[in-house]
Amino acid sequence: MALIIYEKIMSTKVKSNSIIPKIELISIGNEILHGWTVNTNASWLAQHLSLLGLSVGWITTIPDAEQEIISALQTAKQRADVILSTGGLGPTPDDITKNALCKFFNTEMILHEQTLTKIKKIFEGRNLIMPEINRNQAMVPGSADLIDNPFGSAPGLLFKKDNKLIIFLPGVPMEMKAIYETHLITLLKDHLALPGIRTVIMRTTGLAESKVYEMLENTLKTYPQFQVSFLPKSSGVDIRVNYVSERLESPNILDSFCENMRKDLKDYIYAETEKELPEIVGMLLRERSLTLALAESFTGGLISDWITNTPGSSAYFLGSTVTYSNESKLKLLHVSQKTLQKFGAVSQETALEMVQGVKKLFKTDCAISSTGIAGPGGATPTKPVGLCFLGAICKDKVTVKQFNFGKNRRFTKERGTAAGLELMRRLILDL
Amino acid sequence: MALIIYEKIMSTKVKSNSIIPKIELISIGNEILHGWTVNTNASWLAQHLSLLGLSVGWITTIPDAEQEIISALQTAKQRADVILSTGGLGPTPDDITKNALCKFFNTEMILHEQTLTKIKKIFEGRNLIMPEINRNQAMVPGSADLIDNPFGSAPGLLFKKDNKLIIFLPGVPMEMKAIYETHLITLLKDHLALPGIRTVIMRTTGLAESKVYEMLENTLKTYPQFQVSFLPKSSGVDIRVNYVSERLESPNILDSFCENMRKDLKDYIYAETEKELPEIVGMLLRERSLTLALAESFTGGLISDWITNTPGSSAYFLGSTVTYSNESKLKLLHVSQKTLQKFGAVSQETALEMVQGVKKLFKTDCAISSTGIAGPGGATPTKPVGLCFLGAICKDKVTVKQFNFGKNRRFTKERGTAAGLELMRRLILDL
Repeated sequence: MALIIYEKIMSTKVKSNSIIPKIELISIGNEILHGWTVNTNASWLAQHLSLLGLSVGWITTIPDAEQEIISALQTAKQRADVILSTGGLGPTPDDITKNALCKFFNTEMILHEQTLTKIKKIFEGRNLIMPEINRNQAMVPGSADLIDNPFGSAPGLLFKKDNKLIIFLPGVPMEMKAIYETHLITLLKDHLALPGIRTVIMRTTGLAESKVYEMLENTLKTYPQFQVSFLPKSSGVDIRVNYVSERLESPNILDSFCENMRKDLKDYIYAETEKELPEIVGMLLRERSLTLALAESFTGGLISDWITNTPGSSAYFLGSTVTYSNESKLKLLHVSQKTLQKFGAVSQETALEMVQGVKKLFKTDCAISSTGIAGPGGATPTKPVGLCFLGAICKDKVTVKQFNFGKNRRFTKERGTAAGLELMRRLILDL
Repeated sequence: MALIIYEKIMSTKVKSNSIIPKIELISIGNEILHGWTVNTNASWLAQHLSLLGLSVGWITTIPDAEQEIISALQTAKQRADVILSTGGLGPTPDDITKNALCKFFNTEMILHEQTLTKIKKIFEGRNLIMPEINRNQAMVPGSADLIDNPFGSAPGLLFKKDNKLIIFLPGVPMEMKAIYETHLITLLKDHLALPGIRTVIMRTTGLAESKVYEMLENTLKTYPQFQVSFLPKSSGVDIRVNYVSERLESPNILDSFCENMRKDLKDYIYAETEKELPEIVGMLLRERSLTLALAESFTGGLISDWITNTPGSSAYFLGSTVTYSNESKLKLLHVSQKTLQKFGAVSQETALEMVQGVKKLFKTDCAISSTGIAGPGGATPTKPVGLCFLGAICKDKVTVKQFNFGKNRRFTKERGTAAGLELMRRLILDL
């Protein structure tokens, strides 16, 4: 046994019964079952394994309990070609995965000197004495091959049993990702027959999931060979199609399928990449050397937050105001007293004056404004919770649109943010 | 069958073999297995079910595939007292959960008129015509009882089979949470023999997880009977202790344990409830009739977003500016040209003038300011990525503090937002 000597045990490729090898992810850890930790490891791995051409068929989360680990492995071995588990390899007594593995693989725990030396060095590098408890991380099941951990003390473990590849990684996200990227990609590619899976993505905004489906219905019926997924989010609906290029009847069929979807969805598609709506708006602004300011009321800073999540947004985003009070709308944005009195703060007229006012204030080419009732309070007999106005201005073109986003405060903020960005996107494209 | 008539089928409490009823969560959805969506539903449910006294034993994620759904239900029925599933109830053809349920529960799909009427009304309320496909959401397995969905068109489904409670909720997080909070809590409490699990929560901010552990170490060793969990988030570290009150050796032991933890952690504890930091700051402002304004730079609107997530925040929050450009810092906040030239935009001096300027601008009692380098660009030889200054002012007291939050842009924004709110909290308490 040595670090990364998996080559010697892998004389033949792992055969898959299915055409695309199926993988099961097993997440071990009480913290996930208690809801204290969100299982981002699983989604990260699922995403990266999909790109590699593996299909994640199951994600199973189980407690740090010997019998549960053994039982999950037994089930997974029945249905998956590859099993990839994370968690339970830490030094504290609640991490009992390795004991369970000794039982499952019928082997004994041994001390791996090379690993112990490495762990001691890590502590020395930080001017610390290794706590005795960290010796546990150098104890490994005798029949395992070890995968070097570039960032931590617990090595990954690799087993082959009954033509299945069974892998255990530590649960610390940074360590898990480092092992995956440094060693596991190569290991999986070398030992599995992986097809070239590709994804088409079309991102839409401003339409309900059912409406998107209705618009695509005929195309989907004409091309039943493509499996299409609909993914609704507060910012819109993503459409995703996975396919194996070698298995297409003809190279043109995908093109004509996509061309039809584009015709169906028209300008509701804002991206055919992984880019989010604020990034797309930023890209359009940047390409045209336009600058942006925001006057937010019910969105409460969220448009600004989304815009500034994009690195380099300071190139086009000059600033924003969140004007929660009438006085600040008057003073900062020069919304007229008359407008506020006659139409109210939540009105088309106020949204218009806000967007014009903030454009002047920051001397930008473009601006977005929001005013509305996010709830639960603030409704009047004529203005219900959820009533919102979004405004957008780009040079001499201006638009204001009315929406009702319903009764959930956070959802209203998110939908309003997406709607404001979409107004902006369309104005820029119409220039 | 009618909306929420679960009472009639629940003549007896569901018996649990274990003392604490065990629940299995089943997440249905290709989007999770592909890694497109992080399974936050499962962690949210796990957290809330734990608080209720249920123990989540397994979280199983499976594809939108009939046979997989049936097989997962079969496995779960063997080991769990309650099964709670989310996802696959949407209107599009990839949502096939209900068909699988008809097979599993040996029933037929029927049209539920009440639900259809409700869905039509939702669309009318938004001035839209219901797409024909939404009729699917009114089709339900005949033997199911329906649980009203306060925010969406797909009702929850409830079955009882072989003394097990089996529940299906839509996967849209907002709808799932609304059904849980409005109906499911009562339903579970009514029909399960739940032990009185109580939770002590202490929320801290401004300390690393290992530091929190170090401060608590002696207390934890003195009270080994309490199982303590540490939950690090961008806004701080939560400490949670679950216990069954009937099983405590004495009623005083918990009090003295908590008292010791409070002594260890001092004023780093900002809440002993589920309230988040922005809500706590809002509460302090409201109690003292103080008003708040914000001058954000690197946090890019996120402080404002967090503050305005609290309903009724307009009572104390008057507004904010996001000043990404130097010019806007000069013009809106009256930061002096000299300060910007001599010390730069990312400096203690600028943070100070920003917080003073925005307090004047909005005529508030309190204000928070942020300026920093969120990265990845923008660093200089003397000012690295992650260098940030947060300022807070409350009446005549003012403070500015320097931080370095590292190289991740989003993480820096979140940590900075928490740090700004924490400065504000301490200033108010020191009044």
